Amino acid sequence: MAKKIKYGIIGASGRLGSEVNNVFNESGHELVFQFDIDGEKLTEKPELLIDCSLPDVFEKSIKYQQEYQCPLIVATTGLSSEQLNKLKELGNNYPVVQSFNYSLGIQVMLKLTEVAYEKLKDWDIEIAETHHRFKKDRPSGTAKMIQDIVKDKVVNPISLRLGNVAGDHTIYFGGLGEVISITHSATSRRTFAEGILRSSEFAIEKEKGFYTFHDVVFGR
Amino acid sequence: MAKKIKYGIIGASGRLGSEVNNVFNESGHELVFQFDIDGEKLTEKPELLIDCSLPDVFEKSIKYQQEYQCPLIVATTGLSSEQLNKLKELGNNYPVVQSFNYSLGIQVMLKLTEVAYEKLKDWDIEIAETHHRFKKDRPSGTAKMIQDIVKDKVVNPISLRLGNVAGDHTIYFGGLGEVISITHSATSRRTFAEGILRSSEFAIEKEKGFYTFHDVVFGR
Amino acid sequence: MAKKIKYGIIGASGRLGSEVNNVFNESGHELVFQFDIDGEKLTEKPELLIDCSLPDVFEKSIKYQQEYQCPLIVATTGLSSEQLNKLKELGNNYPVVQSFNYSLGIQVMLKLTEVAYEKLKDWDIEIAETHHRFKKDRPSGTAKMIQDIVKDKVVNPISLRLGNVAGDHTIYFGGLGEVISITHSATSRRTFAEGILRSSEFAIEKEKGFYTFHDVVFGR
Amino acid sequence: MAKKIKYGIIGASGRLGSEVNNVFNESGHELVFQFDIDGEKLTEKPELLIDCSLPDVFEKSIKYQQEYQCPLIVATTGLSSEQLNKLKELGNNYPVVQSFNYSLGIQVMLKLTEVAYEKLKDWDIEIAETHHRFKKDRPSGTAKMIQDIVKDKVVNPISLRLGNVAGDHTIYFGGLGEVISITHSATSRRTFAEGILRSSEFAIEKEKGFYTFHDVVFGR
Repeated sequence: MAKKIKYGIIGASGRLGSEVNNVFNESGHELVFQFDIDGEKLTEKPELLIDCSLPDVFEKSIKYQQEYQCPLIVATTGLSSEQLNKLKELGNNYPVVQSFNYSLGIQVMLKLTEVAYEKLKDWDIEIAETHHRFKKDRPSGTAKMIQDIVKDKVVNPISLRLGNVAGDHTIYFGGLGEVISITHSATSRRTFAEGILRSSEFAIEKEKGFYTFHDVVFGR
Repeated sequence: MAKKIKYGIIGASGRLGSEVNNVFNESGHELVFQFDIDGEKLTEKPELLIDCSLPDVFEKSIKYQQEYQCPLIVATTGLSSEQLNKLKELGNNYPVVQSFNYSLGIQVMLKLTEVAYEKLKDWDIEIAETHHRFKKDRPSGTAKMIQDIVKDKVVNPISLRLGNVAGDHTIYFGGLGEVISITHSATSRRTFAEGILRSSEFAIEKEKGFYTFHDVVFGR
Repeated sequence: MAKKIKYGIIGASGRLGSEVNNVFNESGHELVFQFDIDGEKLTEKPELLIDCSLPDVFEKSIKYQQEYQCPLIVATTGLSSEQLNKLKELGNNYPVVQSFNYSLGIQVMLKLTEVAYEKLKDWDIEIAETHHRFKKDRPSGTAKMIQDIVKDKVVNPISLRLGNVAGDHTIYFGGLGEVISITHSATSRRTFAEGILRSSEFAIEKEKGFYTFHDVVFGR
Repeated sequence: MAKKIKYGIIGASGRLGSEVNNVFNESGHELVFQFDIDGEKLTEKPELLIDCSLPDVFEKSIKYQQEYQCPLIVATTGLSSEQLNKLKELGNNYPVVQSFNYSLGIQVMLKLTEVAYEKLKDWDIEIAETHHRFKKDRPSGTAKMIQDIVKDKVVNPISLRLGNVAGDHTIYFGGLGEVISITHSATSRRTFAEGILRSSEFAIEKEKGFYTFHDVVFGR
């Protein structure tokens, strides 16, 4: 088992923050610092900081990281390129992990897409994603990541909106005589918290460096 | 077993015509008349005529039906509304079966869609169809038939074009907490020939009337 | 909107009981009585009782129903045939609804299976179900309900156990040249609570009678 | 385009042999020798031999290869281990390609399974295959190849038998919160002929060596 981490969360009371706390708890790590809408709560100096908040809070997160001089895991979505650059810079002195999607399955799906595409470049390709009816943007950010891998082809991802589906993504490769498809279905938010746990246990062992979740899963 | 039918085919040498001959042969029926690009070949007066040709040949088909005064099964696609009306009129005196799709599975899928829609009117609905890369029109005619059943909702069928897929259709109903889908996959042309056989054995027992393949399958 | 119901729950603090309370709350109904492991809590005499508990508590539920002389909705799974008979008997004097599965989608899937089976009796049939790795029994109770509809055929449902999948069921009909499949995927427990709400709003309008959830959805 | 090959076929009149001839023809290669049930037909000395026959004919194939001293592509299924060893030995002096499945898609699917398995070793795994009702053996040989990749886990492939389905294979990986699946669907025999073409164009450029179709696709 990995060594016990005394960690802090920015955005502790949000949906993802709560799930992260559950998963870290079960793994024997200890919450010693939190910051959210109800303010700051410090028990002890954290050895690692997790940011599950919003882009608006970014400056605050950087401030805390500077104060505690520790590794930083960033799960905030919608960061600007300036904010991303700031994180890369920070990676020169501290371990930083950043990703827009901490699901292991999605990382594996992206990898499989890469491997398949290399061999099936002249096959037809289609991408489909299904999400709950409340999702406004189409296609999903993850569908765009898949599309990005097969970017030598013109593929317009197809979007279905159904009930409260958490999120399904499929890429199809069609040849004359056969079809291969790779599908990822999310069934709960817990998977993201586990990706953050894995990233934290990875970062705590590093001296410095800017890493994506892809690096955590596949090495670099 | 149904009684032996001495039948004639218009469009005998086409893809569908050949398949029809195979299936009728295996069922013990006897080809006694055929007409196609190579001309006419008559062994004996047919008891039933099957039209597997093109809209251009329609007048010729009617002429033959008048000559032989027998039931007529029409599988030609792309008929005009005048041509359809002509067939309905003919139904006043002879048994006539007409359909754009003689697949039993598609008829069942349309029926299931009707039954599901009645109970799930307020769920989200999506329709998807997958066909070979050579198919130009989108969505498919069958997708439009499905769309027509749920026409109180705005549903834009989604089209995927992959390799040489014969034809898949899915309708999804999404509620909060569950999704139901109904899928039909065509794997060979033979199914259409079997629908024509079934329609022929149905028509030969009737005195007169204009019927669709839906009537043949579900009664009227 | 349906009229406001003052309802009571037996098994209020369980997973299903809590979900039922949420859904009834949102619909404007009022919880006036509850019984669970923490004891009894009565604000006002309930107009309808919902049993979301376990077979062990059955006698208690009957006692409460006798005390309040009101309609009873039973969602307990694993009832014995004596207990079911007791409920049918109770239906002679009060409205009683009983089902092992209050999902609307499953009811619709069972109906679709019936309709398809009637037309596709001589096609091949397969049934598959997927559930989380913790599910011990196989096949699932719902798979058995599907199997029961096509009972003139020997079909052995196939079981997959994967992660924490809530529950997927598919029935396949395979003919020569085509395959039709009907799939139901559960994505949350809420759907059951909504079926119980629907059954309650149905029962409150009845004088007496023993009903299944199928009767609530499709009438009788 | 690859250079024109003067090729010979053993088992020319079989289903696969005919398909191979079509595909080679379209690619501009020239049939100069054939052997099958109707005997031998030689126009010119072949530069490459393809064996699409049965294990019984194996000795004959080796005899012809020795006579023409050329590369050999073997698509016969059900070879004994002695026969396979004979081919490996032959590879010391000539280019030999041997596989039980020349579908590019299946090769890619096996590769994807390998890549996914490496990252998802502790997820649940299930394998399912669907074939036509006439297929007697279960699971399919391809399902066993997939099973072989994940052999550290106990996985019993699941078999569905439906109508005249050409062949579908799926492997599922289920984690807590997500499921990934990889599916291959065969839609026609042509894909095998294309794998043989690819292997031939590969072998004609080699001096010697025993290769599998995996080597042809992914290199060695």
